[in-house]
Amino acid sequence: MQPIATKVIDIYAAHSKGEDLAKLGEVFIEGWVRTNRDSGSIGFIALNDGTCFKNIQVVYNSNIDNHDKISHLLTGAAIGVKGTLVATPEMKQPFELHAVEIVVLGDVDADYPLQKKRHSFEYLRDMAYLRPRTNTFAALYRVRSVLALGVHEFFQGKGFVYVHTPEITANDAEGAGQTFTITTLDDEGKPSETDFYGKKASLTVSGQLHVEPFALAFRDVYTFGPTFRAEKSNTTRHASEFWMIEPEIAFADLEDDMNLMEETIKFCISYVLERCPDEMDFFEAMIAPGTKAKLAEVLSKPFRRMEYTEGIELLKKAVANGHKFENKKIEWGMDLQSEHERYLTEEIAKGPLFLINYPKDIKAFYMKENPDGKTVAACDLLVPGEGEIIGGSQREDNYDVLRAKMQKQGNEEGLQWYLNLRKWGGCVHSGFGIGFDRLLMYLTGVANIRDTEPYPRTSGNLKY
Amino acid sequence: MQPIATKVIDIYAAHSKGEDLAKLGEVFIEGWVRTNRDSGSIGFIALNDGTCFKNIQVVYNSNIDNHDKISHLLTGAAIGVKGTLVATPEMKQPFELHAVEIVVLGDVDADYPLQKKRHSFEYLRDMAYLRPRTNTFAALYRVRSVLALGVHEFFQGKGFVYVHTPEITANDAEGAGQTFTITTLDDEGKPSETDFYGKKASLTVSGQLHVEPFALAFRDVYTFGPTFRAEKSNTTRHASEFWMIEPEIAFADLEDDMNLMEETIKFCISYVLERCPDEMDFFEAMIAPGTKAKLAEVLSKPFRRMEYTEGIELLKKAVANGHKFENKKIEWGMDLQSEHERYLTEEIAKGPLFLINYPKDIKAFYMKENPDGKTVAACDLLVPGEGEIIGGSQREDNYDVLRAKMQKQGNEEGLQWYLNLRKWGGCVHSGFGIGFDRLLMYLTGVANIRDTEPYPRTSGNLKY
Repeated sequence: MQPIATKVIDIYAAHSKGEDLAKLGEVFIEGWVRTNRDSGSIGFIALNDGTCFKNIQVVYNSNIDNHDKISHLLTGAAIGVKGTLVATPEMKQPFELHAVEIVVLGDVDADYPLQKKRHSFEYLRDMAYLRPRTNTFAALYRVRSVLALGVHEFFQGKGFVYVHTPEITANDAEGAGQTFTITTLDDEGKPSETDFYGKKASLTVSGQLHVEPFALAFRDVYTFGPTFRAEKSNTTRHASEFWMIEPEIAFADLEDDMNLMEETIKFCISYVLERCPDEMDFFEAMIAPGTKAKLAEVLSKPFRRMEYTEGIELLKKAVANGHKFENKKIEWGMDLQSEHERYLTEEIAKGPLFLINYPKDIKAFYMKENPDGKTVAACDLLVPGEGEIIGGSQREDNYDVLRAKMQKQGNEEGLQWYLNLRKWGGCVHSGFGIGFDRLLMYLTGVANIRDTEPYPRTSGNLKY
Repeated sequence: MQPIATKVIDIYAAHSKGEDLAKLGEVFIEGWVRTNRDSGSIGFIALNDGTCFKNIQVVYNSNIDNHDKISHLLTGAAIGVKGTLVATPEMKQPFELHAVEIVVLGDVDADYPLQKKRHSFEYLRDMAYLRPRTNTFAALYRVRSVLALGVHEFFQGKGFVYVHTPEITANDAEGAGQTFTITTLDDEGKPSETDFYGKKASLTVSGQLHVEPFALAFRDVYTFGPTFRAEKSNTTRHASEFWMIEPEIAFADLEDDMNLMEETIKFCISYVLERCPDEMDFFEAMIAPGTKAKLAEVLSKPFRRMEYTEGIELLKKAVANGHKFENKKIEWGMDLQSEHERYLTEEIAKGPLFLINYPKDIKAFYMKENPDGKTVAACDLLVPGEGEIIGGSQREDNYDVLRAKMQKQGNEEGLQWYLNLRKWGGCVHSGFGIGFDRLLMYLTGVANIRDTEPYPRTSGNLKY
């Protein structure tokens, strides 16, 4: 067994509780050298042990046994330090570790690519396996982890059942967007699309169709897992593999759905602000100033709700008043572009905005047709700076209406089971989908989805 | 907005706290009819609202408006019931809901496949989307959900960072086992293995190689997500898609690793027993009697640890003493079969057993070579009734040793980054993998992995 090390996060916690650190006696800390400077008589190592965002300052002098070795330690080396903690109220860091012994646990070669200087996001993107060792990515992936737990705690705290919907599927949820197909080698060693499962299989684009049956058994359910799109969209917001949160609720209509969306977003914001204060301060200072004010503003008031039809009128008025959109032609029935969505949420609502009741022709087959015969009970949640971050809808629960739509779409055959739900205790139910990576972008202000994912997969990019 | 319903779980909670249910006044409950019997003057509906395992008994009489409709309600219908709760201390169920109004929220056609009678697992396996409406699968998927949260709470409670390792990968972790390859349609509409990413891409068989770099940044990390094997193993323990929990810890050797495995298993057992008492009682009574005693026994004492070499000696002795194995030839260097593993854990250890220090030739390239030059610091955790449920190891942290092994295996080129970790602050580190579905089988006593997964994917089976 390795010696039991004190974690840096625990030392900071003890310090912030006002405990006397000297009482900890001699401690042993393991971690990685961020910087090392030695003036001959005294040396300083900024040590990060991975347990928290902050480093701990190690002070050593020429009395330690292997002083020559230690004074030449490079950034990135793994070391263990035995020493005592000394409060330094007059310094930038609240305490230091005065080393009595330093052991090298994993040395670093001089070709280590993460030297002390600042590196661009592009440079670091090319070394996805090393970037969690930098401040920005350590902060980002810790928030990602905490946020994921928050999602589970939020839904399970409300009694939702977590369903692992499958990644490999015989269906294609929306009938839209290109999918990845799966092949294996058949007995003759030739790639086959059907050999393994006896039919064509693809990677899921959404867990929704598979999770709906579970809502009709458990009432409130959610799925949270990877989804895939084989679209060659080279934007800052598209990846071919990403995580989705998809809640589905029975005995619930679009209004219930929106209430849950609003509660979800507000919970996630509060959770991350509370659990990751150092990381969020870092993003505020170094990545996206204004993020914390933006999030505080979102928490402070109810999200506005607006009919799609009213949105179109407001966009027309904006054009008439000289607002310049790249897509100038505004008409009822159109799919809104990002610039339109952002105008409505940023200029009109000045905050999160639910746009509801979209024309049925631009929305998916499973959405509940409204009594007007023209629109569906769907909504998008638009937020300033991002545009859409959630899409949701009440689901069509009328067997005949849904069947007619599926026949038109040509997907009735493979989805007979989905249709069956409408004749066997199917009730009003609704759901939505949040792209987890985009939610993380929104919360942290990080601008490129390639940075929010540990190993991003985009068209043409499959390193590691 | 739909009317706000009282949840059945909250009523049971209030009742078990000794609260006077009459104080709740008139309640409204939504759910699905499990059974309905009507004697003319009085009728009884067993209603399940999905929020808990238990039903609530609804009592109605001929005074309700739509008595004829309600008295003919079939199993599976969704209804809303307005009424008052009445304690029935003399009856099997502790209280009843006396209905004043019952509305049909989703009717059920007579061809509904889940009629009142008991159905076999095989019958239900063919209707994966309906089986969560049965007692067995409602219990199973609720435990699955609670266990998943437990996994996150356990690791994050210890400061571990959750890493979403990728599903689509250019590597193949163990170089063993057939993988699924991904294809897309190229510009000419032909299936292509390289068009999308510019190289061949497959589905991951393990997140380990991708999560190791994160342990060398955050110290303690885990990944928990889907993994895939394209093996046509038609057994009760193999699926082509399954969820894996893979923790990875820095500054930790095999002993630390085993300590963490033991703590993980014990935590999971306690967590599920505490959070899902009704479900675990159901499994004990109906699925696998003895499971609760087995789990209590596991919690009660430390897991035994034994050298592989000693295991071989004990197996040889068993053969000499007349124990009948199908694979009789026992020799040092062999890979143990399930029957051997089960003999050691069931007959020798009579409980969970870590078998450690396996011959290096039968284990993966990334495992730490022991000083003896013959074995690696790997372990399997064997449990009675199942055999292996965890495999783990200390990782090879010596650059030259690892490089030589990778060159022999021919995977150095694509994994140069993995090798690099050993020269840039790489320290002693270890990790393990638990198949989440198999863990669920172990905890519940459910014997077939096809039943633990919401929509199982096995060779030849891709329904839904």
